[in-house]
Amino acid sequence: MAVIKRALLSVSDKTGVIDFAHQLTQLGVELLSTGGTASLLADAGIAVTEVADYTGFPEMLDGRVKTLHPKIHGGILGRRDCPEHKAQMAKHDIGTIDLVCVNLYPFAATVAKPDCTLEDAIENIDIGGPSMVRSAAKNWRDVAIVTDCNDYVAIITELQQQSCLSAQTRFSLARKAFAHTAQYDGMIANYLTSVDDKNLAGQPNLHTFPQQYNQSWLKVQDLRYGENPHQQAAFYRDLQPAAGSLANYQQLQGKELSYNNIADADAAWEAVKSFTQPACVIVKHANPCGVAVAADTLTAYQLAFATDTTSAFGGIIAFNCEVDAATVEAVTGQFLEVLMAPKFTAEAKAIIAAKKNVRVLEISLSVGANQFELKRVGGGLLVQTTDNHQIEINQLKVVTRRTPTEQEMQDLLFVWKVAKYVKSNAIVFGKGGQTYGIGAGQMSRVDSTRIAARKAQDAGFELAGACAASDAFFPFRDGVDVIAAQGIKAIIQPGGSVRDEEVIIAANEHDIAMVITGVRHFRH
Amino acid sequence: MAVIKRALLSVSDKTGVIDFAHQLTQLGVELLSTGGTASLLADAGIAVTEVADYTGFPEMLDGRVKTLHPKIHGGILGRRDCPEHKAQMAKHDIGTIDLVCVNLYPFAATVAKPDCTLEDAIENIDIGGPSMVRSAAKNWRDVAIVTDCNDYVAIITELQQQSCLSAQTRFSLARKAFAHTAQYDGMIANYLTSVDDKNLAGQPNLHTFPQQYNQSWLKVQDLRYGENPHQQAAFYRDLQPAAGSLANYQQLQGKELSYNNIADADAAWEAVKSFTQPACVIVKHANPCGVAVAADTLTAYQLAFATDTTSAFGGIIAFNCEVDAATVEAVTGQFLEVLMAPKFTAEAKAIIAAKKNVRVLEISLSVGANQFELKRVGGGLLVQTTDNHQIEINQLKVVTRRTPTEQEMQDLLFVWKVAKYVKSNAIVFGKGGQTYGIGAGQMSRVDSTRIAARKAQDAGFELAGACAASDAFFPFRDGVDVIAAQGIKAIIQPGGSVRDEEVIIAANEHDIAMVITGVRHFRH
Repeated sequence: MAVIKRALLSVSDKTGVIDFAHQLTQLGVELLSTGGTASLLADAGIAVTEVADYTGFPEMLDGRVKTLHPKIHGGILGRRDCPEHKAQMAKHDIGTIDLVCVNLYPFAATVAKPDCTLEDAIENIDIGGPSMVRSAAKNWRDVAIVTDCNDYVAIITELQQQSCLSAQTRFSLARKAFAHTAQYDGMIANYLTSVDDKNLAGQPNLHTFPQQYNQSWLKVQDLRYGENPHQQAAFYRDLQPAAGSLANYQQLQGKELSYNNIADADAAWEAVKSFTQPACVIVKHANPCGVAVAADTLTAYQLAFATDTTSAFGGIIAFNCEVDAATVEAVTGQFLEVLMAPKFTAEAKAIIAAKKNVRVLEISLSVGANQFELKRVGGGLLVQTTDNHQIEINQLKVVTRRTPTEQEMQDLLFVWKVAKYVKSNAIVFGKGGQTYGIGAGQMSRVDSTRIAARKAQDAGFELAGACAASDAFFPFRDGVDVIAAQGIKAIIQPGGSVRDEEVIIAANEHDIAMVITGVRHFRH
Repeated sequence: MAVIKRALLSVSDKTGVIDFAHQLTQLGVELLSTGGTASLLADAGIAVTEVADYTGFPEMLDGRVKTLHPKIHGGILGRRDCPEHKAQMAKHDIGTIDLVCVNLYPFAATVAKPDCTLEDAIENIDIGGPSMVRSAAKNWRDVAIVTDCNDYVAIITELQQQSCLSAQTRFSLARKAFAHTAQYDGMIANYLTSVDDKNLAGQPNLHTFPQQYNQSWLKVQDLRYGENPHQQAAFYRDLQPAAGSLANYQQLQGKELSYNNIADADAAWEAVKSFTQPACVIVKHANPCGVAVAADTLTAYQLAFATDTTSAFGGIIAFNCEVDAATVEAVTGQFLEVLMAPKFTAEAKAIIAAKKNVRVLEISLSVGANQFELKRVGGGLLVQTTDNHQIEINQLKVVTRRTPTEQEMQDLLFVWKVAKYVKSNAIVFGKGGQTYGIGAGQMSRVDSTRIAARKAQDAGFELAGACAASDAFFPFRDGVDVIAAQGIKAIIQPGGSVRDEEVIIAANEHDIAMVITGVRHFRH
């Protein structure tokens, strides 16, 4: 079993196929092939039989029907351990095909072209390929199905060493094959169910959200447990993770990441990435508990830590630029779970190495974002585009008598950026690139305001002259009154409440400069 | 085009197929069929040609090769508008097949059987079916592909009225077909990549999380916008939503649900479902802001509302039993977004109808839960089993000198249940089936404790004699001290901190009865 005498090769991605075919012939394997693959191999001087010659049935209908023939599928699907199958195959002159090497035309690349018509897309749906892949994978006990160029070398090596492929290898190839067809038809269905069917000629109108949303993820690792110890969990990555996203992390050292580590690291990373100056974000329970920008990472950390030294205990600490030794020295003065940055200096790495338990992640800072954000609910899924709105200073509208000073405007932009990453209702106080108080996750906005105020007081910040951001509008004036009572003189918020006038009157009464963004940043 | 002269029927689910075939013959359509479908139709007196007779090639290899033949696939794939295709088909005696009716063996049902072996699973992977489905869907301009019994009637009606099927109908069928194959191979890949490959004979060991996680969701509706107005969004449901889950809702009235409505309604529904007595949960920004159980829904609402009348404004209100007129009268005294319950009395419906904007949802109370909860991160996905742990009174451990009274124990179980649905860190105070103060979503536990205390005071509750729950252990004694300062005399918490001893000493100092669950309920 699983001795390879005859192989069929028909690939869209031709990487490595000449060498693979050459090695197979060296091992005495007879080769069948079609179209472009057959020409390529023949030109390379490799003996190959065209499938049409093999079946005695011509390739037809512009290649739509080549391998959909009993002599091919019978040769793949027949069970070698079944006398009846063998007799039927012999009677109909069907020889066994023991290895099938097929990969599919990248449908995603076709439909990604800006001028792709519906006809182009449909024409690029492979029919014969997936049929062979599925037949070969089903009969994995007797047939090897190769769908990934990266497996060629290992397969040749195993064949050279053992003259056959082990059951584990064949099964592993078979599940990879079905994973491949699942992804492939998932992509096709995503595309076709996005097409607006009012216009079925030429370039289709595509809806953002398909009628059936199909997605595949690859397991990175099983986790020790989930959000809680009695829950099981695993971490998966997208087939093509967005550049610069968390899933691209390289873990340099430390214990295995936990479920909550990954969730918190994501929140920290998304927040810290949003700054251009050197920045530090400390996250605890999915919320930033301290954020700062500064001239260097050490100062940024010290400022961020000072916001809430209690909550920072056991936190996730993220930087958006290379981290040096002095910063690592400072950071390791506190208990932390995860330290992350685009890069660490060699000296920094040496210092952190002494803290064996600290998980250290490097992630590139490339710009990229998830196509869709997902939120699971009972029996369903909310799908939305990413909240990647970045405010420009010229979009801001001053609605109060007083206009913010230049310094206040900088501070307002800073606290606004932070508020985007704080769970709603979010109120953030800060000044000079440092958060002074973060009011997170409350059911009423005035409560978030009170929390931000109390936390700033507890940390000993002087709020007179500081700024405040609110992630959504103030439904009543009470929040503004609480802010004013702290001595804060500038507020940034989306506006849009039916009581905006009441809110602006309150700001004017307190001589507060209020800036309206016109954009909300709920994050739950 | 799209006049149906010859059809091929080969179905696993035979619902309605006799009638469909009969109607097709009435319309003058010639029928081809295979195996079980062919016998069924012949027995019903319907003229049908076996595919083997049609191709001249016998069904072989235990049915593994029946339709994988150029005469079938050429007949499906040939373009009727292409003279070359027509000539090739004529030359090889390939007649057109204009309608293909195929549905696939329910692989999921096979692998769900407790004694299913790997061989059983593999044998039930359909090869010929998906090949025909995909061929016919690709050639949708000329061929109708029917994969859903529910489409039979509409197809016959359209054929009777217009003698052909419109492009819109054929395209709609084609995308449904690819949606079907995508789901099918997704299921197969989920199963195969869950198999532990150390044992490939007999019943396999299945890992909880597959190597490749494939999932498909069906769009319920595009939403006006996402979590924020500048984000686009849609709501999807599982192919088979868990019984009693939110996605099964029936909207009785009101505006379209928004993204945030759905997310909050899910939180409210999961929380309210967890109670056996009549219960009311009011949710705002993904957190309960008031929860109560009582003898009737009106009292439950009044108690829940009293917890935090400010936050309840614009909230989502959920009940776990039939809602009567008196309750609706009371509820509509406040501004609310969504009202949900398993059932409303006719009188209650009539009253709420006057409030046209209020979204009213009915959802059955059946027991059921998502197989997996999902959390999206940058470039990846956290997947975990549901937190469905329910504490039993005999699992509780009293760790203090004082033991809770019977009434305190009831109260502790109530606040513990609520804490499970509050964002971490969660602290819940309550008594007599009513929440008194909810401290949610803080980065330090002592902050959540202070918030719960302040909110209870603001609402005018007498905390002496009330109970407290903490969703995770107290890392320090400070949280216990804050609770004690309120006069609270009983606490329920998971335990497990390295400082449990310090925490228990604090409780004893304050004469507090402390109960340990051994189970944590983080929810972020």
